Amino acid sequence: MSTIEIKNIQILQEEKGIRKDVFIEGGRIAGIGQKPEGFSAEEVIDGSHKVLMPGLVNAHTHAYMSVFRNYADDLPFTEWLFEKIDPLESRMTSEQAYWGNMLSIAEMIRTGTTCFVDMQMFPRMAVKACADSGMRALITRGLVGSDRHDEGGIRRLREAFDEMEYAESLPDANVSFALGPHAIYTCGEDFLRYTAEIAKEKGLMINIHMSETQYEYETCLKEHGRTPLAYIESLGILDVPAILAHCVYLAEEDYAILKKPGVSVVTNPASNMKLGNGFAPVPRMLREGINVCLGTDGASSNNALNMFRELGLMTLAQKGASKDSLVLKAEETLRIAVENGYKAIQDGDLPGGRIEEGYSADLILLDEEAPNFQPKHNWKAAVAYSSTGYEVTDTIINGKIVMRDRVLTTIDEERVNYEIAKAVENF
Amino acid sequence: MSTIEIKNIQILQEEKGIRKDVFIEGGRIAGIGQKPEGFSAEEVIDGSHKVLMPGLVNAHTHAYMSVFRNYADDLPFTEWLFEKIDPLESRMTSEQAYWGNMLSIAEMIRTGTTCFVDMQMFPRMAVKACADSGMRALITRGLVGSDRHDEGGIRRLREAFDEMEYAESLPDANVSFALGPHAIYTCGEDFLRYTAEIAKEKGLMINIHMSETQYEYETCLKEHGRTPLAYIESLGILDVPAILAHCVYLAEEDYAILKKPGVSVVTNPASNMKLGNGFAPVPRMLREGINVCLGTDGASSNNALNMFRELGLMTLAQKGASKDSLVLKAEETLRIAVENGYKAIQDGDLPGGRIEEGYSADLILLDEEAPNFQPKHNWKAAVAYSSTGYEVTDTIINGKIVMRDRVLTTIDEERVNYEIAKAVENF
Repeated sequence: MSTIEIKNIQILQEEKGIRKDVFIEGGRIAGIGQKPEGFSAEEVIDGSHKVLMPGLVNAHTHAYMSVFRNYADDLPFTEWLFEKIDPLESRMTSEQAYWGNMLSIAEMIRTGTTCFVDMQMFPRMAVKACADSGMRALITRGLVGSDRHDEGGIRRLREAFDEMEYAESLPDANVSFALGPHAIYTCGEDFLRYTAEIAKEKGLMINIHMSETQYEYETCLKEHGRTPLAYIESLGILDVPAILAHCVYLAEEDYAILKKPGVSVVTNPASNMKLGNGFAPVPRMLREGINVCLGTDGASSNNALNMFRELGLMTLAQKGASKDSLVLKAEETLRIAVENGYKAIQDGDLPGGRIEEGYSADLILLDEEAPNFQPKHNWKAAVAYSSTGYEVTDTIINGKIVMRDRVLTTIDEERVNYEIAKAVENF
Repeated sequence: MSTIEIKNIQILQEEKGIRKDVFIEGGRIAGIGQKPEGFSAEEVIDGSHKVLMPGLVNAHTHAYMSVFRNYADDLPFTEWLFEKIDPLESRMTSEQAYWGNMLSIAEMIRTGTTCFVDMQMFPRMAVKACADSGMRALITRGLVGSDRHDEGGIRRLREAFDEMEYAESLPDANVSFALGPHAIYTCGEDFLRYTAEIAKEKGLMINIHMSETQYEYETCLKEHGRTPLAYIESLGILDVPAILAHCVYLAEEDYAILKKPGVSVVTNPASNMKLGNGFAPVPRMLREGINVCLGTDGASSNNALNMFRELGLMTLAQKGASKDSLVLKAEETLRIAVENGYKAIQDGDLPGGRIEEGYSADLILLDEEAPNFQPKHNWKAAVAYSSTGYEVTDTIINGKIVMRDRVLTTIDEERVNYEIAKAVENF
């Protein structure tokens, strides 16, 4: 964390052609246009030819899974998961998972993500990778179990709390935590109820996969006589703030449940399309006032952790699926990818997602001269419809420059690529 | 055009880890793995840490339109076209159109496109831009007219032939030509018949917009008692080889028409989604053996001319729309974006789209170390599912290096951006 002055920059939401100086101190935006009293910059960034915007929030991913990227594509779902991914995952070491996290974080920093919500299976590794890289994250140990007496389930819960303690020993880690019951098809009814009770008791949020596939939806109706959403609501999962990943299959009555305060939905367009799950009803959820966020899901079902690519996909896929060119306008798309994500992680002390005094200095700078941004008509449209993510030149997280002029300052990418190559040698 | 040796490179379709030298001479691939007799390299490219593949073919665009990029988004179609784009287009000068072409070509070269099919409204400008930049293109003057006596229509046809002559005065221009009746809703029945007659007489292909919107499809049924495709077939348009852009709305009987030899369809997923037209039936067309190619359409309905972004969109959108994760596998996606495009332009003398001896040296090199390409499991999947286009480091067209280590060698981008900014000052 240092004091930073960004000179002479175009701010995304301001009028085209207006250039300002932006001042950062103590991990927050300390001034815009006017230097705060007594401010002295340790670092100065020349913002000429650059555009400033808040960093993006990848609200659903599994960062360690980038080791499986481009490994088992174009296969039926069950063959992909049970014959390819699962056997490898069970042989994977924590160290390999750490490098998977670092690779994902490198890609996210390069493409302008400043915060991610993770569900992981290798305790401590995401925490360590965040501390080492300066990335911000909400981390959840993926929980699987049948009931409150299931030994495996209890061990995983213990690991979840162990890594929260571990994080306290790493003062540089910008991480917070939630409980992560994996899904209704991997957790028993009593185990789900139990995690909800613990979350309530400890004041933790919940992060869960929800209504991702038609199969999950229909099986739940058959087995529990209600939709997946109504089912988890009945178990108390929504008595605490919750992040629900996917929500592709929704019944009419589900919208009322999603409107509960504290509930956020994460749409994952690439993953939902790639696995043949279809398109989540995003325009309808927005009309209902539901807090919709955006995520990439894991690299093995995407296969990138690039939120600019993802937001472009989201708006185009939704317009295509609804045959309505007016749904998900540029402004709305950006709100989903930025502000709604920060809202979902609910860190009240540190508001994020806006270029405003007092907001967290989670910021990215884009190359104003990129060919796909010419002519400079409308920056919001440029980001929503023309960006690839590789226009990002600088990334600042919590007031620390983690990428400067396209060079990562906290991650040795050559080392990451080397370790990743070594990890997958015997795949 | 020079002799080039690419040393020690991973070729996309070859086994992972095998590295070869590739030799280029006279605009063609002269050798792979073995230096041709008497070969002497004027330029040497170090291919370590790079992947070689054929360049992509953007089989439908309007290159001059990049001046309208991000200018009038999120509007209803008629407002966008008639209130925003049309009035500007009528005030646009040829010089502005030239710079629009140069901007588009810069973006295409940067993102690995080595050939495009253009429909333009500013005669000679696309030709001149191709000659100046080294880009390969099939160029068609957009034709609009009511019948064979329509003065405007006759003038446009004259301009089409004039620019074919003009191209002969530019020996560096890698361009060929087709006739481009714009669409069935902008050309009268007799004018369409007339352009078909001329195309047949002169041995030219036809390039036309086809069945893009539901409105076009239904209006044609009502007015002509047949589908748009059956209608143009009845007018002789398909008596010559033809490139049909869009084909989103097709009747059962249309597939038989599309199977005619010489017919190619260009799908434009971003444009079709952005304008709310939906998803073209690509899997069905492929099953029928139709030559499906890929295009970006113009920058004002996309808003990028980035074929890597487009091929990712295509495969994901098709899987999502069909709810089938197995349609459009990586290999098929690549064939559509590369080989099928070269097949569509039908330049029999210069086969393109493969890394094979004798094939045209339209080649691109990708950064093997890009974070989104790690780990190096499967290069075809990496390109289809993880690429953004900005992994391209070098672009070679017709044996000439037009981008080297991410620096364009034939286009002064600063000048392009300056001219484009000037052109749109009074928009």
